[in-house]
Amino acid sequence: MELAGQIDFLLQADRLKTVIRNNRLVSGERFENSAEHSWHVLLQTLVLAGHAPRDIRLDHVLKLLTIHDLVEIHAGDHWVTEENAQEVAEKEARAAEEVFALLPPAQREDFTALWWEFEAGETAEARFANAMDALHPMLIVFGPGASGFCHEELSAEFLRQKKAPKLEPYPELWAYAQTLLRDALDNGFLVP
Amino acid sequence: MELAGQIDFLLQADRLKTVIRNNRLVSGERFENSAEHSWHVLLQTLVLAGHAPRDIRLDHVLKLLTIHDLVEIHAGDHWVTEENAQEVAEKEARAAEEVFALLPPAQREDFTALWWEFEAGETAEARFANAMDALHPMLIVFGPGASGFCHEELSAEFLRQKKAPKLEPYPELWAYAQTLLRDALDNGFLVP
Repeated sequence: MELAGQIDFLLQADRLKTVIRNNRLVSGERFENSAEHSWHVLLQTLVLAGHAPRDIRLDHVLKLLTIHDLVEIHAGDHWVTEENAQEVAEKEARAAEEVFALLPPAQREDFTALWWEFEAGETAEARFANAMDALHPMLIVFGPGASGFCHEELSAEFLRQKKAPKLEPYPELWAYAQTLLRDALDNGFLVP
Repeated sequence: MELAGQIDFLLQADRLKTVIRNNRLVSGERFENSAEHSWHVLLQTLVLAGHAPRDIRLDHVLKLLTIHDLVEIHAGDHWVTEENAQEVAEKEARAAEEVFALLPPAQREDFTALWWEFEAGETAEARFANAMDALHPMLIVFGPGASGFCHEELSAEFLRQKKAPKLEPYPELWAYAQTLLRDALDNGFLVP
């Protein structure tokens, strides 16, 4: 029966609530976990949907973002650098197979395809989903009243270059993100 | 400029991550918060969408569930009983005004309408969203391998009557939910 496997999948997914990210909550009181992040990115997407291309399928963006971090149940949350990018990608691809294995076959294929679509970032929906994912930690770390806490000494220029490919296609959002980086530099949260 | 108010709204929403629910994670290791719950219900909705009526607008269900608990930022998470139902409803209605006030006017109206739609539970989308919300804690408390932890002594018959109006319209899900309650009773997690 299909339902039993679906329930097992959902119970396994509960572990995303214990995957700890590098950024803290807005208040700075503790680190954020990947389940909370996933919800907050979904809310952010509803609020900022007006910045997406007019003909985008919003439901598809929401689907991509609901499952985008699930692989972290097995692969963990990684701060991706040039050095570890390949290794993280391989680890996550293996994790995707493992995570979605509990689903009934047709759904396993659907979810796996959604995850790869997000990773590839080539469709309009995946590009906007990736932009939302890239913007979210900037907001809750460097937004008005946020803690400014960084897990290591970070350069504003490094972050600008890391975020640009994902955010530049949305001019108002990218302008805002760059303001956040300049303010964070002025406030001493980032080095030049 | 619209973006500033939208960002303030999103930063305020971060507080949903500190609203603690009555149920624990599947592992039992700690209580769940309402932001994690919101994400998990969204994932559950994608996985169990096949139980919804065929012509349902899934994106609308996802929107309802993304914002359904936001009022708890001001009103807290309540175990609703016959005695406090009216009081909780009034508190949440006031909280909705406060929470959505930071959004630009058109979006404030949209989000407020979505929240009331979820509360009223009258559209096909709101009914399915409410069913998902009602099923979720049953899965992560009484599902296979879950902790069985209840915040107070609870009766299986009381829970059956509380959940029935929301879950009965989806026969396979309701049958499964009743199996969970019977097993929880057999395992001593519930009283008759």
